[in-house]
Amino acid sequence: MPLVVVGSIALDSVVTPTQTRDNILGGSAVFFSYAASYFTSVRLAGVVGEDWPCEHTNVLKARGIDTTGLQIIRGGKTFRWSGKYAANMNDRETLDIQLNVMNQFDPVLPESYRRCKFLFLANGSTKLQMKVLDQCTGPSLVVADTMDLWIRTEPKELRALIKRIDGLVLNDSEARLLTGIDNLVLAGHAVRELGPSFVVIKKGEHGAMFFSEHETYVLPAYPTPEVVDPTGAGDSFAGGMMGYLAEKDNFNPKTLKEAMAYGILVASFTVEDFSLERLKIIAREEIDVRMAEYKRMLSF
Amino acid sequence: MPLVVVGSIALDSVVTPTQTRDNILGGSAVFFSYAASYFTSVRLAGVVGEDWPCEHTNVLKARGIDTTGLQIIRGGKTFRWSGKYAANMNDRETLDIQLNVMNQFDPVLPESYRRCKFLFLANGSTKLQMKVLDQCTGPSLVVADTMDLWIRTEPKELRALIKRIDGLVLNDSEARLLTGIDNLVLAGHAVRELGPSFVVIKKGEHGAMFFSEHETYVLPAYPTPEVVDPTGAGDSFAGGMMGYLAEKDNFNPKTLKEAMAYGILVASFTVEDFSLERLKIIAREEIDVRMAEYKRMLSF
Repeated sequence: MPLVVVGSIALDSVVTPTQTRDNILGGSAVFFSYAASYFTSVRLAGVVGEDWPCEHTNVLKARGIDTTGLQIIRGGKTFRWSGKYAANMNDRETLDIQLNVMNQFDPVLPESYRRCKFLFLANGSTKLQMKVLDQCTGPSLVVADTMDLWIRTEPKELRALIKRIDGLVLNDSEARLLTGIDNLVLAGHAVRELGPSFVVIKKGEHGAMFFSEHETYVLPAYPTPEVVDPTGAGDSFAGGMMGYLAEKDNFNPKTLKEAMAYGILVASFTVEDFSLERLKIIAREEIDVRMAEYKRMLSF
Repeated sequence: MPLVVVGSIALDSVVTPTQTRDNILGGSAVFFSYAASYFTSVRLAGVVGEDWPCEHTNVLKARGIDTTGLQIIRGGKTFRWSGKYAANMNDRETLDIQLNVMNQFDPVLPESYRRCKFLFLANGSTKLQMKVLDQCTGPSLVVADTMDLWIRTEPKELRALIKRIDGLVLNDSEARLLTGIDNLVLAGHAVRELGPSFVVIKKGEHGAMFFSEHETYVLPAYPTPEVVDPTGAGDSFAGGMMGYLAEKDNFNPKTLKEAMAYGILVASFTVEDFSLERLKIIAREEIDVRMAEYKRMLSF
């Protein structure tokens, strides 16, 4: 089943303890689409400026990602994010954000996108996420991501959005911020009680937790010795998860758990290099090999 | 198979965001023994002062723990530790440490302890751990715990000890401190290369990682909504793990992984109340029920 994603498309500058990269391909919708493309056909919507290198569009197209929904704003500049990672590669500091064309982004979904069954509202302003949702004609599964910025600045809109979606994906500190609850098990269920039928809390290098009315579980991250750049890990996780759900065309508890595991594994590849560099050179088979290893790791 | 443990026995004062307890039963060897007692017979060695309430000894004896190796020093005061937990219940600050009789502790193992096949050197000075090891006549499995204090103050002794043991258990920050490596997968294997055939890195609320020559895996913590006091979780983990190994009387890869899981689950009970309060009211059956749930959680 095709999967629609709307979110940020960025040029990132990343500083790690050992290396630096400038103006590399990034953004929530980019990492998401690429990760999801191993499992299903993906339709991407987002906005870039005139400075956007068309090679980047080609990178996405090369994986069969539909970029009909990519708006290019004449005279505009692409969204830029710059960040620096601590030695532990888990904590990071945002050095600079330039929203640029994101400020003008008025998402108008192509007709072919509007009837999709699977929709992911990647990180972006809640108002924008709501505008996208309003254009879709009854998707079966709507999952959204959010972040501290929107929890703080658009709390009312976010609560309204949360009531209309099936799943919410957010990280541990965001779950604590949204609920005021420190224990993640309690926080996860408190988020779920705001509306969605399931909630996923991402814990970075420690994996992810899942919450539904009848289930609470945690899956660890794949223990990778090679963490080069964690940027996009969370979006790749969501992409792998949603891509697998769309591939299976269902979201029953069994498929959701498998999808969580696929999300974790795609993310484990993303962090092994900058931008999409690692994902670019892997095939679905390599994800499945790692999945077999991951399953062995968790069985006893 | 009987299991010998030598380590600290303490009176703890614990401050959590919502509650405070003074002079409660604690110490690495206490949590370890109690946790291990669900699986095997335990022989405890340690030292206390004249202020030691004999009810505490009775609590241990009630679970069949052999306290022949418990030294009571006339006129001495029991080791005291006082700590305060942050709102996340994972970070803690040590408010006060009074070593008291631990300063004079000269471990002399009873004859019945010396020929044990399974030995755990719980947290304590490396020199003391070495003295204990020297008295044992060829145990099959020796596992030790350590902490930042000994890594900093007795680095030479610690490296010598590490060469003589089969397994080392330490937490994530300690593994980084010992190796100077931030990535935990690399750090775990670097510790292993110092001598032991396996290394376990405890990650608190995020579970534990295992490293041997041919295996690297991580198991998540059991997601408990009720964290009252995390004190002793790491020692309970080690107790559950070693207790299960001693019960099975082997330490092949399969048993080691099951033992890791049992350690995680016993620790998940420990944190649900202060001191040994939660463990005191559970039976082995409850650990096994949680194990069945944990296995379900990790299978997909």
